[in-house]
Amino acid sequence: MQRFTDLAELGLEQVQELLALARRLESRPEPRALAGKVLGLLFMNPSLRTLASFQSGMARLGGDSFVITPGQGTWQFETRDGAVMTGAAAEHIREGLPALASYCDVLGIRAFAAGEDLEADLADRRFHAMAALVDRPLINLESAINHPCQALADWKTLDELPAGGRRKFVLSWVWHPRALPLAVPAATVHMAAMRGMDVVVLRPEGYALPEAVMARARRAAAASGGSVTETAERAVALAGAHVVYAKEWGSTRHYGDGAGDQALRRALQDWCLRDDWLAAAAGDCRVMHCLPVRRNSAIADEVLDGPRSLVLRQAYNRLPAQMAVLYRLLRH
Amino acid sequence: MQRFTDLAELGLEQVQELLALARRLESRPEPRALAGKVLGLLFMNPSLRTLASFQSGMARLGGDSFVITPGQGTWQFETRDGAVMTGAAAEHIREGLPALASYCDVLGIRAFAAGEDLEADLADRRFHAMAALVDRPLINLESAINHPCQALADWKTLDELPAGGRRKFVLSWVWHPRALPLAVPAATVHMAAMRGMDVVVLRPEGYALPEAVMARARRAAAASGGSVTETAERAVALAGAHVVYAKEWGSTRHYGDGAGDQALRRALQDWCLRDDWLAAAAGDCRVMHCLPVRRNSAIADEVLDGPRSLVLRQAYNRLPAQMAVLYRLLRH
Amino acid sequence: MQRFTDLAELGLEQVQELLALARRLESRPEPRALAGKVLGLLFMNPSLRTLASFQSGMARLGGDSFVITPGQGTWQFETRDGAVMTGAAAEHIREGLPALASYCDVLGIRAFAAGEDLEADLADRRFHAMAALVDRPLINLESAINHPCQALADWKTLDELPAGGRRKFVLSWVWHPRALPLAVPAATVHMAAMRGMDVVVLRPEGYALPEAVMARARRAAAASGGSVTETAERAVALAGAHVVYAKEWGSTRHYGDGAGDQALRRALQDWCLRDDWLAAAAGDCRVMHCLPVRRNSAIADEVLDGPRSLVLRQAYNRLPAQMAVLYRLLRH
Repeated sequence: MQRFTDLAELGLEQVQELLALARRLESRPEPRALAGKVLGLLFMNPSLRTLASFQSGMARLGGDSFVITPGQGTWQFETRDGAVMTGAAAEHIREGLPALASYCDVLGIRAFAAGEDLEADLADRRFHAMAALVDRPLINLESAINHPCQALADWKTLDELPAGGRRKFVLSWVWHPRALPLAVPAATVHMAAMRGMDVVVLRPEGYALPEAVMARARRAAAASGGSVTETAERAVALAGAHVVYAKEWGSTRHYGDGAGDQALRRALQDWCLRDDWLAAAAGDCRVMHCLPVRRNSAIADEVLDGPRSLVLRQAYNRLPAQMAVLYRLLRH
Repeated sequence: MQRFTDLAELGLEQVQELLALARRLESRPEPRALAGKVLGLLFMNPSLRTLASFQSGMARLGGDSFVITPGQGTWQFETRDGAVMTGAAAEHIREGLPALASYCDVLGIRAFAAGEDLEADLADRRFHAMAALVDRPLINLESAINHPCQALADWKTLDELPAGGRRKFVLSWVWHPRALPLAVPAATVHMAAMRGMDVVVLRPEGYALPEAVMARARRAAAASGGSVTETAERAVALAGAHVVYAKEWGSTRHYGDGAGDQALRRALQDWCLRDDWLAAAAGDCRVMHCLPVRRNSAIADEVLDGPRSLVLRQAYNRLPAQMAVLYRLLRH
Repeated sequence: MQRFTDLAELGLEQVQELLALARRLESRPEPRALAGKVLGLLFMNPSLRTLASFQSGMARLGGDSFVITPGQGTWQFETRDGAVMTGAAAEHIREGLPALASYCDVLGIRAFAAGEDLEADLADRRFHAMAALVDRPLINLESAINHPCQALADWKTLDELPAGGRRKFVLSWVWHPRALPLAVPAATVHMAAMRGMDVVVLRPEGYALPEAVMARARRAAAASGGSVTETAERAVALAGAHVVYAKEWGSTRHYGDGAGDQALRRALQDWCLRDDWLAAAAGDCRVMHCLPVRRNSAIADEVLDGPRSLVLRQAYNRLPAQMAVLYRLLRH
């Protein structure tokens, strides 16, 4: 494995191998496996779980890490080719990225969507521009349209359920005060489809996932024996659901248009996942979310504090899942 | 020892055992004692000594650490139960704390007083709410009403003096442009009482320590054979003093009322500790402060740069004292 | 070696010994050499390469490090003697520096020029005031008038060229929207002179390097058999050049006078290093810059992306050069 940027690149067998390695490292720690190795972490956007779990995971394998956060202790980066740099950005990624890469054995990059041009974000242009400058193992810490670390941890979390969470997996839009990126919904729908689940995307009108995202998930489902559909009908979607994965994202009808998104969103505050949503779900239906989650805006206290919630297990699973990624990238 | 949040919880014997361990680690380092262990550090408030001494101490024991600072690289946390989260805070402590805890073997939390409601701060409600969410060893890095790491380091510093600093210990209020929290004065008066010293709290009118703080210190003094009194008379307090511990804090008469505090404080700029304060003190009287200290506002250059000052030794002692805490929490 | 603050302090032999050690550590890593040792890094100014390369270098030698950045997670420091501290700064360097030093085995300090008083900056008063407070090995991470870590890495980069870059070394002023400090130009001209090169400083009128800087470089050249001259004539300077080192700095005629500098600078936007500048240079002329560099303001894309550029090699060489410094300071 040369880089960990997309579960689709790896394929089913390699994902399962990573998860087996994650379980092995949980039961039989290898505290000197990566001695002398250094992980660089570049956060163009804020982080809590990603930073803490990667620094901890590297340490538990005997390695070390450093963190760079442009705008906090270092300057902003320019990303545009050919830019005449007279503004705030003091360094171009064409220098900054290779320089950082030369100090580490593996580099992780977080670079959210610009949120202006849907095509550019779907193509993950910013992340790929940065990745192309790195000549060593690379980890996608969340890009415009992907979050493979979260998807791998979520896969492990589902594996831990009886019968892997069984079949019906509902990705449900939930409310947030602002339009958030598509990275987690896109990664989640693909992950569940790749696992062979029957995926239903439940979202209000104006929030359909882009066709490119749906098509990619359908291709994964075709290979795994799963399925992918979408609906705005909550009752249809949630009936018999085994897993409900709540997530906030921005209107794709008004992508890059904050006012348009706000106009739609204003009427959608009842999209806060409550216990009564799950009345017709399977009895052991579980609720997932990647965190951070706004309580009582996106998911009600009663759900997060109740027995259905898997959110803390998902958070914990970032650690062993990512330790497996680091191990596989750095030991051959 | 399951957690290190309050010297009173430990009792005299355990404190002395920690200090013996601190001295042992100073003379006989154990650079692999905590190999593979990870310390998480969560700073809801700024830090210099605490961050540097904990990261260094963990490294000197062979372990590693990560730092999370909400508002700097990560978002603000919500702490109120039942909050409908539509504002600036992106994550509730009910998710954030357990997630961070799951990535480490011991978690340190700094969470200063809100400074609005004296009862809430005396009860240390915010810290206890956070602590209750952590299912593993925990360290109080300074809360609304306690600072056990500072108290332990100060205890060690006093132990290094001839006759442990002898008997008369004066905690003196000194000037600061703003109302500061009660954590250090409360921890200090308790620590000195627990050591069996005759503690005098010297402070202007309006700055008496809360009765709950004084009562707790008197209980410690009753057990140790010390005493605790308070006065606004500088000459009375300082006569024969063996140790003067200078500290800034806010008016308890005007707690949570910045304007009221400022009105009182305006006339108190002569509460800057100078050499002439110590004319009637013991000849070998020493001066302490937890740092950071504002020179020539709280303590004059002549004192800080003179032979009485212990402030740098106090700062250094954070390192071995906290190494003992880490060692005791993580090795059984 | 007790401290690494200035190549001139070390002399030629010690510099060459450090570079031999850097090459040895590149070919024969010593991943346990500094086990149990701690590097403190204090950044009064932003950093990218310095932070990442020092944290990585310490880790690759088996040691660990912590980072303190006043204004980001900790408060501002007061540096003035005798100050009555009632403003923003919460701690004086007289307490903060010795406290930090007591937590580590070697301390690195970055403290840029104040940019107000040329004499104070040429004397490096701020850095020396801080250095005087540190009682253990010390590294200058860039001060008002020096950047020995960059100079050592650049020396190594030149050593890697055929014939060490040969003789003619041009330090050329290039454009930047603001007046930048003199640390890198001063360190660079001295480094090249100390290597015995024929150094030409090319700069527009008003940007002559201070006589103290030039005199120091001439003394180094006298010892090494090199030379140091300056000119505003681009054609003269660049004819036959073997190395062109581009760097931005502020007007020395208008030092501390932003408006005066801007008035001069406005007409100098053609001082952007392009391929056509090098038409009369040596065929294998190479281009250097310490980074960060503003593309198409200071150096054109065509140069940075072309075969003459050494900037990424310079950045990489920070790592082995600094590992040699750490090794030499901490192992005797």
